[in-house]
Amino acid sequence: MSAYCFGIDIGGTSVKCGLFLTDGTLVEKWEIPTRTENKGEGILPDIADTIKKKLEERKIAKDEVEGVGFGVPGPVNSKGVVLGAVNLFWGNKEAAKELSELTGLPAKVGNDANVAALGEAWKGAAEGAKNIILATLGTGVGGGIIVDGKILYGAHGAGGEIGHANINHQETESCNCGNKGCLEQVASATGIVRVAKKYLAASSEESSLRKIKNISAKSVLDAYKAGDKLAEKIMEKVGEDLGGALAIFSCVVDPEAIVIGGGVSRAGQPLLDCIQKYYKKYAFNVCKDTPIVAAKLGNDAGIYGAARLVIKEM
Amino acid sequence: MSAYCFGIDIGGTSVKCGLFLTDGTLVEKWEIPTRTENKGEGILPDIADTIKKKLEERKIAKDEVEGVGFGVPGPVNSKGVVLGAVNLFWGNKEAAKELSELTGLPAKVGNDANVAALGEAWKGAAEGAKNIILATLGTGVGGGIIVDGKILYGAHGAGGEIGHANINHQETESCNCGNKGCLEQVASATGIVRVAKKYLAASSEESSLRKIKNISAKSVLDAYKAGDKLAEKIMEKVGEDLGGALAIFSCVVDPEAIVIGGGVSRAGQPLLDCIQKYYKKYAFNVCKDTPIVAAKLGNDAGIYGAARLVIKEM
Repeated sequence: MSAYCFGIDIGGTSVKCGLFLTDGTLVEKWEIPTRTENKGEGILPDIADTIKKKLEERKIAKDEVEGVGFGVPGPVNSKGVVLGAVNLFWGNKEAAKELSELTGLPAKVGNDANVAALGEAWKGAAEGAKNIILATLGTGVGGGIIVDGKILYGAHGAGGEIGHANINHQETESCNCGNKGCLEQVASATGIVRVAKKYLAASSEESSLRKIKNISAKSVLDAYKAGDKLAEKIMEKVGEDLGGALAIFSCVVDPEAIVIGGGVSRAGQPLLDCIQKYYKKYAFNVCKDTPIVAAKLGNDAGIYGAARLVIKEM
Repeated sequence: MSAYCFGIDIGGTSVKCGLFLTDGTLVEKWEIPTRTENKGEGILPDIADTIKKKLEERKIAKDEVEGVGFGVPGPVNSKGVVLGAVNLFWGNKEAAKELSELTGLPAKVGNDANVAALGEAWKGAAEGAKNIILATLGTGVGGGIIVDGKILYGAHGAGGEIGHANINHQETESCNCGNKGCLEQVASATGIVRVAKKYLAASSEESSLRKIKNISAKSVLDAYKAGDKLAEKIMEKVGEDLGGALAIFSCVVDPEAIVIGGGVSRAGQPLLDCIQKYYKKYAFNVCKDTPIVAAKLGNDAGIYGAARLVIKEM
C-alpha cells in the first residue's frame, strides 16, 4: 500500500482537504473555497490543483499516493456517479472518473453523510466497527450506513437517507422532500424548533422558552438541560421519535453502534440519554443494548471517511 | 470454480437438500427428517451423511464440490456461529465449522430468512439484483437484506429482523418477542387474523367473514379479492402498515427491489397492489418506484440461497 492518501469534503461554501497517511494519521488539513459559478465546473479542477500543489510542496511522488477520496452533498451511486448536487449546481456527474483524470490518481466518491459515517467507523466514535448507523442532526437529518466496513450506497444513492423515514402518517405539514411525516421534521435542528413552537402554542405552561424571541434548537436543549419542564416534554417527544426510528433501523441493519452527529449532538449526554431511553424501549431484544454514542470527529469526519474510501481492506 | 455445490435448508421437521451446479442449476433435491432429539445433536451428522451418500451415488469427487451452504431457523453471525435455534433445540453452535469438519468440505451458514433472500436475489424474483429486501409473511414476519450481493448478518445476527420493527407505539397487545407494536403483529398471517377480529368486533358492518368460524389469513384475503368491504378495510390497514414500514426500510438500504414471500404472498397481485399503494405514498422520492414483487422460488428459496453462500463472487 502507498504511504499517503487524500480525503476531500466538498461543501457548498468551502472544500475541506486532508492529507493522510494510510494508517489514518492526519498529516495536514486545509480549505479552499467552493467555486459554484458556471454550474460548479471549477470545483473538481480546483481540487486537482490543490492536490498537485500539495504534492510538490511536500515532494511526494504520485506513486506514493493511494488515491483521492471525496464526499459531495448529494446522492452518489456505487459506480462513482453523483446523481445531482443542488448546492454545487451539479447535475449528474461522473465525478470519480473526472477527478481521477484531472489528478492522475485513483479517485472514489461518496455522499457526504455516508462518508462521514465511514470516518466515524474508521477513526471516530465507533473506531474499528464494521457495521454502524450514523444519524447527523443538523439543519436536516442525514445519515450513513456502514456494512462490513463499506458504505451502503443504495440503488439510487439513497442508502442512509434516514431523515426521510416516514414515521408519522398523521403529520399535516410538509417536509422539504414533499412528504409529510419525515423524521427530519422532528429530529433536525429546525424540527426541534418546530416541535417546540407547537408545544408552546398548545399550552400556557410556564417555560423559560417563552422569554426567547427566536427559539433555536440550542435554546430548547439548553432549557432542557436546565430542567425546564416544557423543554423536557419537547425533548421527550424528539427522543421518542428519534429513538423509535433508530430502533426500527436496527431491525434492518443490526449495527454494532449508533453514532449521533451534527450540530444538535453538541447537546451531549442528556440528549443521548433521552434517545437511548426510547431506543431501548422499542428495539428488538438482542439489539436493546447497542451503544448510542456522540460523533467524535466533528467537521473532520468527512475528510477521514473520504480518505478511508481509497484505502484497500486492512 | 468447482462444478457442484450443496444448498441445505434446515427446518424444524425436515431438512431440504439440493445438489446444484455452481451456475445455479438445481440438479436434484430431496429431504431428510430433522432429528431434534438430544438437543438436535444428530442434525449436522445426518446432513453430512446424506451429502456423502449423494457424492457416492453420483460418483462426484470432493474436489468437484465448491462447498455446502446451509440455512438455519435462528440468528447467525457473520463468523458462522448460530446464536441459538429454538426449533432445533440448539444453543450457541459453531455450525459452519462443525459441518465443514463432518463433510471435509467448506461450509457456510446463514439465518433461513436471510438465506432465502439471497436465493431470490440470485435466481428468484429479483434475479441478478445485488441489493434487495425480502419480507416473508408467514406465521411471523421474517426478512433478509442483501447488500452488494451478500447477506447483511448484523452485529447480533439480527440483520433483516424486520418483523420486529416497532411501528405502532400505541399498541397494547404483546408480540411474541415481548415488545408491543411490531410489524409482525399486523402483517403476518396471525397478524392479519388479529386485525380482522378487531375490525369485526369494532363494527356490525356486514361481511362474508362473519359466517366463517375460524378466520384465517387466507379467508381474509379471499374475501378481500371477492370485494368484501370490511375485508378491504382490514387489508388497507395491513397494506398501510406494511407499505409504510417498507418505505422506512427503503430509506435505510435503498434496495433495487422488494420481494414479498411466505404463505401470505400467495394472495398475489391484489396484495402487492395494496402494499405498493402505501409504499409509494410514504417512500422517499427517488425510492417511490422501487418494484415490489412476489417471491418466485417458494420453498426452494432456502436451498438456492444456501448454495449461493458458498459460491465465490461471479
